[in-house]
Amino acid sequence: MTTTHGLRRDALRILLRTAHCDAMVVGDLINVRYLTGFTGSNAGLLVHADDGPDNEDRTIFCTDGRYLSQSAEQVPDLRRDIERSCATYLAAVAVGFGAHTLGFESHVVTVDEHRALVAATVGAELARAPGLVERLRMVKDADEIELLRAACTAADLALAQLVAGGGVRSGRSELAVARELESLMLENGAEGPSFETIVAAGTNSAVPHHRPTAAVLAAGDFVKIDFGALVDGYHSDMTRTMVLGEPAAWQREIYELVAAAQAAGRLALVAGAETAMVDAAARAPITDAGYGEQFLHGLGHGVGLQIHEAPGIGAGSTGMLSAGAVVTVEPGVYLPGRGGVRIEDTLVVTDSTPELLTLTTKDLLVL
Amino acid sequence: MTTTHGLRRDALRILLRTAHCDAMVVGDLINVRYLTGFTGSNAGLLVHADDGPDNEDRTIFCTDGRYLSQSAEQVPDLRRDIERSCATYLAAVAVGFGAHTLGFESHVVTVDEHRALVAATVGAELARAPGLVERLRMVKDADEIELLRAACTAADLALAQLVAGGGVRSGRSELAVARELESLMLENGAEGPSFETIVAAGTNSAVPHHRPTAAVLAAGDFVKIDFGALVDGYHSDMTRTMVLGEPAAWQREIYELVAAAQAAGRLALVAGAETAMVDAAARAPITDAGYGEQFLHGLGHGVGLQIHEAPGIGAGSTGMLSAGAVVTVEPGVYLPGRGGVRIEDTLVVTDSTPELLTLTTKDLLVL
Repeated sequence: MTTTHGLRRDALRILLRTAHCDAMVVGDLINVRYLTGFTGSNAGLLVHADDGPDNEDRTIFCTDGRYLSQSAEQVPDLRRDIERSCATYLAAVAVGFGAHTLGFESHVVTVDEHRALVAATVGAELARAPGLVERLRMVKDADEIELLRAACTAADLALAQLVAGGGVRSGRSELAVARELESLMLENGAEGPSFETIVAAGTNSAVPHHRPTAAVLAAGDFVKIDFGALVDGYHSDMTRTMVLGEPAAWQREIYELVAAAQAAGRLALVAGAETAMVDAAARAPITDAGYGEQFLHGLGHGVGLQIHEAPGIGAGSTGMLSAGAVVTVEPGVYLPGRGGVRIEDTLVVTDSTPELLTLTTKDLLVL
Repeated sequence: MTTTHGLRRDALRILLRTAHCDAMVVGDLINVRYLTGFTGSNAGLLVHADDGPDNEDRTIFCTDGRYLSQSAEQVPDLRRDIERSCATYLAAVAVGFGAHTLGFESHVVTVDEHRALVAATVGAELARAPGLVERLRMVKDADEIELLRAACTAADLALAQLVAGGGVRSGRSELAVARELESLMLENGAEGPSFETIVAAGTNSAVPHHRPTAAVLAAGDFVKIDFGALVDGYHSDMTRTMVLGEPAAWQREIYELVAAAQAAGRLALVAGAETAMVDAAARAPITDAGYGEQFLHGLGHGVGLQIHEAPGIGAGSTGMLSAGAVVTVEPGVYLPGRGGVRIEDTLVVTDSTPELLTLTTKDLLVL
C-alpha cells in the first residue's frame, strides 16, 4: 500500500514533469520531512519525474551517520544512503542515473551551495525549481489536518485552563502568564509552543509582535495573548484579547470592530477566493471606522509544518485559496500608548463555510 | 562612547577592507543581531569599509513596518529605513552611495535572492563574502561571555534542582524528565531551552541524538541528558550521563573511558591548538580502548548566538582555536542495544587552562 509520504512524492513527480525536470534534489529539511517523515537536522531526497509510487528504486533518501537508526525507523520505505553533503551527493547520483535537467530549490539553496552543485553535476543542467514542495504543502491531507486539529485543541484547552485557574490577573507579569500557558500546552499533549508566546498587557498590547516582559498586568489593561501548540511538527496559531476589569468605552469599541472584521474575513474565506479579496473583506470595516492606519499587517497566513507558510493573505498577496488550505485570519487594531486588540483563528478552507480549528470563544473576556 | 555593537561593526569593516569590498549587505538575522542588537524576524544592515565608529552615516539598518518601535528601541544608534525587502533595498542604496564592489553573504543568500540583488545593483559588482561576521562571532567579547556564563549557570542550577528533587527516577518518562528540566531552567532565568532537551534512558542512551519519548526510566539504566538554556539569545550546552542504581561493570568502564577522553579534550583545548588535534587528543583513549567505531561524531562545536557555530572541532575540521572562542567538548561512546555515555561541557578557550562555564560535577551520578 502506498504511504501518505509516497503519495506526496508522487504529487511532486507531477510538478516535476510540468517543470520539465528529469529529477529534483530536495534539501529543505521541512520539505524532506513532508516527503519522507524524517525529522533529523541533515538530509536530502532525490525524486525522479518518471518514477511512480510502485517504482521508487531511484528515489533516494540521504542523511549522515548520526541518523543511521533514526532514518531506518522513519524512512523504512526508501533506499537510504549515508553521506554528510546530501544535496551534492544526490545530485551526482542523479547525473549517474542519466538526468539531464536536475531541479533544485533555488529559494533555499545558497549561492555557495549552488557552486558545489554545479561542480557535482558536470554534463547536466541545473534548473531553478522554487517552491514546488511548498505548493503541495499548501493543501493539507487528512493526516495533516488531524495533527493541526490536535495542535489547536491543545492550545484551546491550555488557554481555558489558564483563564479558569485565574492565571490572567492583575499583579502577574507577562512572562509568568506566558510560561504557565506554555506549560499547560505541554500538559495537553503539545511538544512545545509553536512559536514564542506573546503576552502583551496594557500599552504593550498596542505592539503587534510584543515579546513578554516582566511588565505587570493591571486593572483596565487589555491582555493580548498570541500563541500556539506544536504537535508532531504541526503548528497551531491563535490570538485572543481579554480585558482586566470593566472595559472602557474605547476598549469595547475597538474590540467589537476587530471582532466584526475577523468575522468578515472568515466569511470571505472560501475555496476559489482571491487572497487579496479576503484581506479586503476584513480590512474594510476597520478602514471605514477610521482605523485603517492602525492595522498595518496582513490578514493571515498558511500554517502547517511551519508557523508561517503559503498562502499569504494580505493586501498585496496574489493567488486563490484552495480547499484544504489551513490559514489564519487575524485582523488587529493597535492604538499606540493605549492598547490594541487582535483576534485570530486557524481554519481549514473548504468549498463552503471554513472549518474552525481553534474553538475558544471570541466574546470579549472580562476578567 | 562607541557601543559594543559599534565595535563589532568596526571589526567587520577591517574584514571588508581585507576582502576588497567597498561595502557589504548583511542579511543573516543572527549576524544582524550580533552587529546591531535587533531581534526581529526581518532586517538587513549596510556597512561601508571606509567608515569608522564615529562616522556611521552610511551604516544603515533596515526592517519592515512591524518593527518600527522595536527597532527604534534596539537600534537607536543607526539610521533606520523601513522597507520589506531589506537586502535588495540596501544593495540599491549602496550603489547610490557609489559602491563598486558590494559584498554579500553567499553562504546565506539563496539563488533566487541573488537574482534580485543582481537586478538591484546594475553597475556594481556583487562579491561573494561568506562567513565574515561568523568569523568575528567566533571570538566572544566580554558581554557575550557574561551571557554565556548566565546561560550555563541556569542549566547547572536546573539540573542540580532536578536531581536533588528526585526528578530522575525509575518509573518516570523521558518526556516528563525533559519537561521538568526545561521548566526549572525557566525558573532559573532562561528564556527557554537552547535546543530540544535530550533525555535518553536505557538503550535509548545509545542513540546520540535521541528525542525524549514516553519510554520509562528503569533501574540499571544509563540516563543521558543533553540540554541547555537560552539567555538573551545566547545558548549553553551540557551533557551529563547518570545511572539508576548500582552501575554494572560495563557501565563503569565506558563512563570512566568517556570521562578520561573528555578530560584529555579539555586539556588539549588552548589558544593556538589545531581543532583537529583537540579532537584527536580526546579520541585517542576511546580508540585505544577499542571503542573508536562507537564514537562517530565530532568532539565539539562553537556556541553563542547559535547552538552550533564556528569553530567545529572534529577529525576533519581545519583551523586553530582562538582565545575567547567558546566551544563544547563532548566525546561519547554508544553501544547499540545496551546504552551510551556522553559528557559535555561548554568552555572558554584561553592562553592556558580553558574556563569551564558548565560547572556540574562529572563524577558518575548514581541515583
